[in-house]
Amino acid sequence: MKLMVFEKGDDTALGVVDSEDLIDLSRLDAGLPADVGALAAGGDAAMERVRSALAGDTASARLPLAEARPALPVPAPGKFICMGLNFADHAKEGGHDVPDYPALFMRARTSLVAAEAPVIRPRCSEQLDYEAELVIVIGKTARHVAEDRALEHVFGYTLFNDVSVRDYQRKGAQWTAGKNFDGTGPLGPVVVTADALPPGASGLRIQSRLNGQVMQDSNTANMIFSTARTIVILSEFMTLEPGDLVALGTPEGVGHARRPPVWMKAGDIVEVEVDGVGVLRNPIVDEDAAA
Amino acid sequence: MKLMVFEKGDDTALGVVDSEDLIDLSRLDAGLPADVGALAAGGDAAMERVRSALAGDTASARLPLAEARPALPVPAPGKFICMGLNFADHAKEGGHDVPDYPALFMRARTSLVAAEAPVIRPRCSEQLDYEAELVIVIGKTARHVAEDRALEHVFGYTLFNDVSVRDYQRKGAQWTAGKNFDGTGPLGPVVVTADALPPGASGLRIQSRLNGQVMQDSNTANMIFSTARTIVILSEFMTLEPGDLVALGTPEGVGHARRPPVWMKAGDIVEVEVDGVGVLRNPIVDEDAAA
Repeated sequence: MKLMVFEKGDDTALGVVDSEDLIDLSRLDAGLPADVGALAAGGDAAMERVRSALAGDTASARLPLAEARPALPVPAPGKFICMGLNFADHAKEGGHDVPDYPALFMRARTSLVAAEAPVIRPRCSEQLDYEAELVIVIGKTARHVAEDRALEHVFGYTLFNDVSVRDYQRKGAQWTAGKNFDGTGPLGPVVVTADALPPGASGLRIQSRLNGQVMQDSNTANMIFSTARTIVILSEFMTLEPGDLVALGTPEGVGHARRPPVWMKAGDIVEVEVDGVGVLRNPIVDEDAAA
Repeated sequence: MKLMVFEKGDDTALGVVDSEDLIDLSRLDAGLPADVGALAAGGDAAMERVRSALAGDTASARLPLAEARPALPVPAPGKFICMGLNFADHAKEGGHDVPDYPALFMRARTSLVAAEAPVIRPRCSEQLDYEAELVIVIGKTARHVAEDRALEHVFGYTLFNDVSVRDYQRKGAQWTAGKNFDGTGPLGPVVVTADALPPGASGLRIQSRLNGQVMQDSNTANMIFSTARTIVILSEFMTLEPGDLVALGTPEGVGHARRPPVWMKAGDIVEVEVDGVGVLRNPIVDEDAAA
């Protein structure tokens, strides 16, 4: 199932993508959650209620997918853990060894933006870089999970552009500043439930494109730490909760490793695509123009 | 004003400390927020309502402070930013240069525990270390704030023990794992409003004690990045929101820098104290005993 949260008046609603249509679940059952985070928190019962709603006549709840404006699928994740250096060739291009433990950092929700929304190029830096990533949406509470049970804790997968301000990423000993500028975390538009993808979402082509030109082109099978392994590693030290997000790192081809470096600028269009999960597309806008 | 969130049945309530009493605000005005995060989000109007409630007869709302069980003052912060290396002597003891930009990382709420609650020593490591810290509770939304206006965005201050699992802190390129074990982030018990402390909470003695022995003993005047400067630095790249937390780093004297190193173990009692803000006290318990 492909879920999409979309803007509806001053609020959001949860929809199901069906070919060229979006089925507005709030019109079928007003008691359903309004975003994927709340749906994941509702557990199997909430998903069962979604399936029941879809089993009836959906004609009156359909709108053209092309007319829906995406919102954040999980607007307020309890936490958003990101993995750096999870593709060997990307670690090398940044001058890092291939790690035996992931580089973990966090995203604040203030940095997140929906698909199609502007990514903000800040006035304090020109070093604005893209990073195509696949994201796990956690479905069931996970602590001390064994690897052969890890995938049971996945609700689904979505897309992330881990847009990084490279000089701020390296200003201190930790990457947090460069990874948390307002308006630099495109997320969405669609969450694909785990049953609709290969186990662990492995074997999927992952790309980024800048103004149509392919900049990153790899496969999720090349991740150093798989989806299952990542859940094992994280749940060794922390409780993963429904609606938590985990970004699985980006492949080689980022802008800062190119000679000369490639920085995104106002007017650019950046896209992230993973086969079977869709396309996440955002324009770049200067901070002063966005204010 | 000294605010304390405390457990009340299956819920929490917001109280005001008055000498040996705790005044249960929920008994004076049931419409008041139940924690400091929600109070900060309510802005000046919510604080005005607290003052109105306290202006009446409070006799029926008083309980002995010693009988109240503290809860997290901000149970679900939008974000919790932590500064590493904000005292020059602590940077040196860890082998770091004195930084010209702070080392920033984040805490997930799953790692937080209230005052008096057990800190969990995980079964996977013995390297459990204390870090006494002062924490800013943000009161007003802040973005691109000038230094001479920065303190207007502070609601108040509380205490934090940034308990760190040192081997996990250094397993990857980033510190996130070692700073986010479940049950390693004691926070509270009291939030002191900014008007009750010196500007920026500067000039206050800050200590940690392990089983009564002083382990860290410094002064918040020794911070490399002051409260105001920290808000300027953070708000350059991100929006600080009411209820967000910012931990201001720890002074020298941590366990891992001692020879031999000092690690906390089951049965220990660890305390953080800042003059005027109070004492944050927690016992250490083994993970297997806590489960």
